[in-house]
Amino acid sequence: MRAETVTVGTEILLGQTVDSNAARLGQVLADCGVDHYHRQAVGDNVGRIAEAIQLALSRADLVVTIGGLGPTEDDTTREGVAKATGLPLVEHAETLADLEELFRRRNLTWLESQARQAHLPRGSEPIPNPNGTAPGLWLPLADGKVVACFPGPPREFNPMVETWLRDRLASLGHPPLVSITVRVTGIGESLVEEKLRDMLDSPLATVATYAKTAEVHVRVAAKGLAAAQTMAEAVRERLGPNVYALGSSTLPEVVVARLCDRRETLAVAESCTGGLLGGAVTSVAGSSDVFLGGFLAYSNGLKASLLGVAQSTLERRGAVSEECAVEMAQGAQRAAGADWAISVTGIAGPGGGSEEKPVGLVWIAMVGPSGCVAHRSLLPGNRATIRERAVARALNLLRLALD
Amino acid sequence: MRAETVTVGTEILLGQTVDSNAARLGQVLADCGVDHYHRQAVGDNVGRIAEAIQLALSRADLVVTIGGLGPTEDDTTREGVAKATGLPLVEHAETLADLEELFRRRNLTWLESQARQAHLPRGSEPIPNPNGTAPGLWLPLADGKVVACFPGPPREFNPMVETWLRDRLASLGHPPLVSITVRVTGIGESLVEEKLRDMLDSPLATVATYAKTAEVHVRVAAKGLAAAQTMAEAVRERLGPNVYALGSSTLPEVVVARLCDRRETLAVAESCTGGLLGGAVTSVAGSSDVFLGGFLAYSNGLKASLLGVAQSTLERRGAVSEECAVEMAQGAQRAAGADWAISVTGIAGPGGGSEEKPVGLVWIAMVGPSGCVAHRSLLPGNRATIRERAVARALNLLRLALD
Repeated sequence: MRAETVTVGTEILLGQTVDSNAARLGQVLADCGVDHYHRQAVGDNVGRIAEAIQLALSRADLVVTIGGLGPTEDDTTREGVAKATGLPLVEHAETLADLEELFRRRNLTWLESQARQAHLPRGSEPIPNPNGTAPGLWLPLADGKVVACFPGPPREFNPMVETWLRDRLASLGHPPLVSITVRVTGIGESLVEEKLRDMLDSPLATVATYAKTAEVHVRVAAKGLAAAQTMAEAVRERLGPNVYALGSSTLPEVVVARLCDRRETLAVAESCTGGLLGGAVTSVAGSSDVFLGGFLAYSNGLKASLLGVAQSTLERRGAVSEECAVEMAQGAQRAAGADWAISVTGIAGPGGGSEEKPVGLVWIAMVGPSGCVAHRSLLPGNRATIRERAVARALNLLRLALD
Repeated sequence: MRAETVTVGTEILLGQTVDSNAARLGQVLADCGVDHYHRQAVGDNVGRIAEAIQLALSRADLVVTIGGLGPTEDDTTREGVAKATGLPLVEHAETLADLEELFRRRNLTWLESQARQAHLPRGSEPIPNPNGTAPGLWLPLADGKVVACFPGPPREFNPMVETWLRDRLASLGHPPLVSITVRVTGIGESLVEEKLRDMLDSPLATVATYAKTAEVHVRVAAKGLAAAQTMAEAVRERLGPNVYALGSSTLPEVVVARLCDRRETLAVAESCTGGLLGGAVTSVAGSSDVFLGGFLAYSNGLKASLLGVAQSTLERRGAVSEECAVEMAQGAQRAAGADWAISVTGIAGPGGGSEEKPVGLVWIAMVGPSGCVAHRSLLPGNRATIRERAVARALNLLRLALD
């Protein structure tokens, strides 16, 4: 089967909206093994919509349109499909009744324009839209081809293609691939690729790497769950302890879960990250079971008064030093009464660097039940990415210690 | 002038990459008053690239391609242009010399495949690429139409279209609109729209609203700087103190700049935001001049021991209360020795809410040279958006006090 996408919306062409729906649709089609060679985008113009659909029907078996299904005058995809296929718009009684019922239930004022959403090209099957008023439509044509239309708001579009379209494609003999994300931190994408080189060409599963700011995600996709799991485990084994999760767990979630399992508590002492480490830990619902809190010791004065960093350390070694990081972590552990404490002090830039201590230099120290370790990093990037990477380094150090 | 976009890249059709370049290009074309009725995307296939360019040339005066200009075998946009236009690829000596020089300077190994980037359709003018190896190209055709090609990596693409393409379009009689962003916080998009309703239809300038998680941005665009400034000032006047900046300054930048002007210092005390407020303040380079640090008093124990919140307050009023917020801010001001301190305590969810204190309830308190205020909010959204909105509320309260 070959599919083609037609996105409808003047806001797309004006660049007011990035067409993330089309990317999502591309993933679903790829997962289901449907070929996808062309994508088009046109504005809210019946003639151009119809031409785009006709061109797509000349090249593909399934034409999927995105957007233009709402109740306003601008929403002209239904008219465009009718014009392209020669099938007139007819009122779909059940859809109209559903719409009227929805408005009654939500106590909304019914406007006559809402009824446009129930005018579908003759022969259309409406596609339920659990998050909006405009249904999609699935229109089989006499030559065996199909035009399918979905609404444009992502919170309506995404669940409809992720469930209804996947199911329909499966029923037509295109079951989706099963995919598992292997989540990696502490090594870069090129090293991950080098370690996985032979796996990237595997006939058993599709393996692809995606670089994030402080992580690499390896996506494994295969025709069945067993094949995907086998390959994901092989990737995990190859990459070793740099893999922090298979699936959807984030690095803070893994750290919080391990602390919960061990019934141990955590405190932080932050300088250059200024709160982002605590912010990451507390992004996890339920982190209050293990996270006590911490210290933003941004000024040297507060490093001394809140955390007990020695004046001699600040004067002789400086605030960005192994000694200062260790004293910060020890001070946080003591003041918060926590089992674990982790500190971050570094130079996030753009100013403040020197030859001896360049921008990107970060010291992380961790104290726990079995002692203290310190870790030096030289992180690339700008102020924002250096800080994000420092947070990931700190969390990863803790994760490895909690193993 | 009418333009059409052709994005090249199999990764785009597979949905591995969202085509944000095409949106950026759409903005530039719209700003320069160039009509833009069609966009296409095709994979890395010479035949399909050539067909897409031919179709685009049949409908538009300027065809802009994105991607497929690199040195690898997959990068076939140059071949596609040659095939579509019938103009052979010829070695562009100056471009080749520049490439070889670049590799020498960066101490990179020269691979023969790199030379492909200097093979341009006959008659092409290379477009300089300050951030990569592949130049773009501008190819005027015999019928007066033009094919322009740009590389796909956003850090190469964006500056090339924002500077070179804008300049070229201006020299062809399409000067860009001047745009100014009016940055608003503390009121929602629908209220902003209501207040600006007559301005949204103004013939003097384009005025459009964009909702962010905790802000609304109003983009004003007009044919000259004076018209844009006049309209932006009118928007600012209409919206009053909810406008925190005209231009590109962020809310934390405005707060830090005002503290710098006043030579006053800040400390924070965070509960539900867990460090995100400090993280926002320290996102600003140079914030160390005014930000001393703060306290992540996530547990009730630390609220008492670090900030001196009274046990009676925690027991009778609870941690999410006006009294607790005030005592947290006072404690942070005292312990840090700061001129200003601001505290945040709330229920970010998803658990922990009650009828009396629902998820989204946030108390913010601020102490400064002239006393103390507390502010109650009931914020919508999930855990992440409630926390982000709480940070914006806190910064905005401080901004208004610093006025």
